Amino acid sequence: MKISSACLLIGLLISNLLWAQDLKVNSDLLNKNLQELAKIGKNENGGSDRIGFSDFDLEGRAFTMKLMKEAGMEVSIDAAGNIIGSVYGTVPGLSKIAFGSHIDEVPNGGDYDGPVGSLSAIEVVRTMQEAGYSSRHPLEVIIFANEEGGVIGSRGKVGTLSQAALQVVSSSGLTMAEGIKKIGGNPDKIEEQVSKEGEYAAYLELHIEQGANLFQEGLEIGVVEGIVAIEWWDFTFKGITNHAGTTPMNMRKDALLPAAQLVLDINEIVNSFDGAHVGTVGKIQAFPGAGNVIPGEAKITLEIRDLSSEKIWAIYAEIEKRAKELAQQAGMGLDIDHIEVASESALSDPKIQKMIEKSASDLGLSYKYMPSGAGHDAQEMARITPIGMIFVPSKDGISHSPDEYTSPEDVANGANVLLRTILEIDKSGLE
Amino acid sequence: MKISSACLLIGLLISNLLWAQDLKVNSDLLNKNLQELAKIGKNENGGSDRIGFSDFDLEGRAFTMKLMKEAGMEVSIDAAGNIIGSVYGTVPGLSKIAFGSHIDEVPNGGDYDGPVGSLSAIEVVRTMQEAGYSSRHPLEVIIFANEEGGVIGSRGKVGTLSQAALQVVSSSGLTMAEGIKKIGGNPDKIEEQVSKEGEYAAYLELHIEQGANLFQEGLEIGVVEGIVAIEWWDFTFKGITNHAGTTPMNMRKDALLPAAQLVLDINEIVNSFDGAHVGTVGKIQAFPGAGNVIPGEAKITLEIRDLSSEKIWAIYAEIEKRAKELAQQAGMGLDIDHIEVASESALSDPKIQKMIEKSASDLGLSYKYMPSGAGHDAQEMARITPIGMIFVPSKDGISHSPDEYTSPEDVANGANVLLRTILEIDKSGLE
Repeated sequence: MKISSACLLIGLLISNLLWAQDLKVNSDLLNKNLQELAKIGKNENGGSDRIGFSDFDLEGRAFTMKLMKEAGMEVSIDAAGNIIGSVYGTVPGLSKIAFGSHIDEVPNGGDYDGPVGSLSAIEVVRTMQEAGYSSRHPLEVIIFANEEGGVIGSRGKVGTLSQAALQVVSSSGLTMAEGIKKIGGNPDKIEEQVSKEGEYAAYLELHIEQGANLFQEGLEIGVVEGIVAIEWWDFTFKGITNHAGTTPMNMRKDALLPAAQLVLDINEIVNSFDGAHVGTVGKIQAFPGAGNVIPGEAKITLEIRDLSSEKIWAIYAEIEKRAKELAQQAGMGLDIDHIEVASESALSDPKIQKMIEKSASDLGLSYKYMPSGAGHDAQEMARITPIGMIFVPSKDGISHSPDEYTSPEDVANGANVLLRTILEIDKSGLE
Repeated sequence: MKISSACLLIGLLISNLLWAQDLKVNSDLLNKNLQELAKIGKNENGGSDRIGFSDFDLEGRAFTMKLMKEAGMEVSIDAAGNIIGSVYGTVPGLSKIAFGSHIDEVPNGGDYDGPVGSLSAIEVVRTMQEAGYSSRHPLEVIIFANEEGGVIGSRGKVGTLSQAALQVVSSSGLTMAEGIKKIGGNPDKIEEQVSKEGEYAAYLELHIEQGANLFQEGLEIGVVEGIVAIEWWDFTFKGITNHAGTTPMNMRKDALLPAAQLVLDINEIVNSFDGAHVGTVGKIQAFPGAGNVIPGEAKITLEIRDLSSEKIWAIYAEIEKRAKELAQQAGMGLDIDHIEVASESALSDPKIQKMIEKSASDLGLSYKYMPSGAGHDAQEMARITPIGMIFVPSKDGISHSPDEYTSPEDVANGANVLLRTILEIDKSGLE
């Protein structure tokens, strides 16, 4: 009796695993749900105004929680306003596998940035439940609160949301604290509920790329190596403000000239390094900024992003050297300020990257390894658990816009890679 | 009797002229008056807030009118708010010789831009009266209203102040019409009182250079060839706005790059032409202008000034060609807008230039011929009468600033050149 019941158990387990390999999400249902969610907060430009903490956000969250319950999850809202959908695991004591994203959008945003990962996470659970597959680990679908407002929910979850940040006014017009209260959280309890290392085995997030790498190269899946670090600097050249009519050309100290040269040199220096880093001057100002006054000051803002902070600083070192040369040649002063908006990189777990690659490969999908140039909730979750991210193509690389688009096939591909990767982690773990 | 009285008259005339050659202004008195006027509207930065139409302006005008009366002038205020100090001439039917400047300043301005020419004009009349010299022509000292607000008084005098311009709000907070009323003018009568060609034989203006040409070259007098024409253009490059984190370097259409190149090329092209013209980019904007967004648009404002409009347009043609090449190379759109702030050049009368040169030379002063890169009331007066302008050095070329400075010697030199030039025009005329 003992042997036969053990055999039965092993048999069930094997069949469960073999058969799980063929599990696929219901693409039609998933894409229909995406379309339903997209209706909530749609404005006259075709954009989404489902801004975090808005009434549309509340409505979208209600829709999402309904889907979660239908998929068999137990649904709750944590202190930071995150929606948590829970499924028990079969093996006691294992830590949770979490996956999810967000459903809030920037003002006049798109329908895919966030919802793709969120509704795919729910569809993954629904697919498993429908097939009668029981995971070893507990599963948790997390819909993070107000991601676009500055990854508010994930910061609350991991303990990086300060009291000061809670008082910042969000796009909804409410402070973060007021917004969190509105969607069912409790700002006073956030610290008590902070998740600790060991609570999760992994956090996975499927997301649209928001860049054109996959789309332009005709690839289906991005295996995200990590979320880049971001550094900002202001360079201010200091010449002499003077009358543009009465000051001869050879007596000028026009600060805009070295600043313009530095804009070009930055582009050249950034391009001279190999790799997927990016460097941008998005802002330039001449002071006083009148057409009839020679600029006495000119300021540019430089941003560099890469997975490696070391590389960012190596690129910056070249730029700094060049900026100082330009100031010296022009006989001008130069101020360089390192701006405190910087954010650290968050690297994906190498084993999870390999599992995502294998899942894509087994499904016959083309893929590439790439960094995420944009920030995501996963970068906060990386503070307490190994993370992995899966990208699907953004048409023309457009996001934060009504023109944001990812095809139904690409959405389903991403969801299937997410499903297989979760099954693999559930089966093998990361040790 | 007839012969002897004729002889007496001729004798008097000859002695008048001979002796007039030695007339000199009272430098101490002139500079003391400049210091007195400078106290009116002085702010805590050491700058002058004697803004046109302000209470300080009223106080400064009262001080100026007192000096005019003490110098023997009949004083009135015309419909445009200009202060007119009149002296009769000895020969009936001759047209008036006018000279003057303004006493209003830009906010936090200096003590010399305007007052030097205004108080020197009064001192010239006082010197002539004290010496008992009677001019053949009627003389008119004009203190123009609100020059810094856009040569308001001189435009009113010559008929170029539109009804729309009268409704513009000035730095004082009043509309031009309200301001003119406040200082004793009558905006409704401006058109009736417009001066016509033939009313004046000449208009002369002594002014600080507001540039560093004379100061740097150690010269004492500038013989102004004319007031330059000014043309403005906006160049807008049109690339593609995109996420600075997710858009690879080789997929960007960053509009700031050709704009920065054009800033450098403009400087090179302007310098490649010989002459005293100037070309400036005083304003640059990247849109949307955030550190984390690749600029989809970049706009620069170009100003070119020269005495010759033809030359301005020749320089512009090279710049336009280069801008179009840059846009084409970058695969971007380019909009060029010619801005309607342009002002025409006003050439000085060649005979008056020669007389100014001779006056400086006779006084043993060093001089150079030069354009005025800044606008002045003289450019409006040029519409109805031959004009001449005399420049004295500005320390370090600084103006519109509390640091504006012209030495007492330079002020007196300018006043003496003004005096001799008026005497020469009065004696010889311009025919």
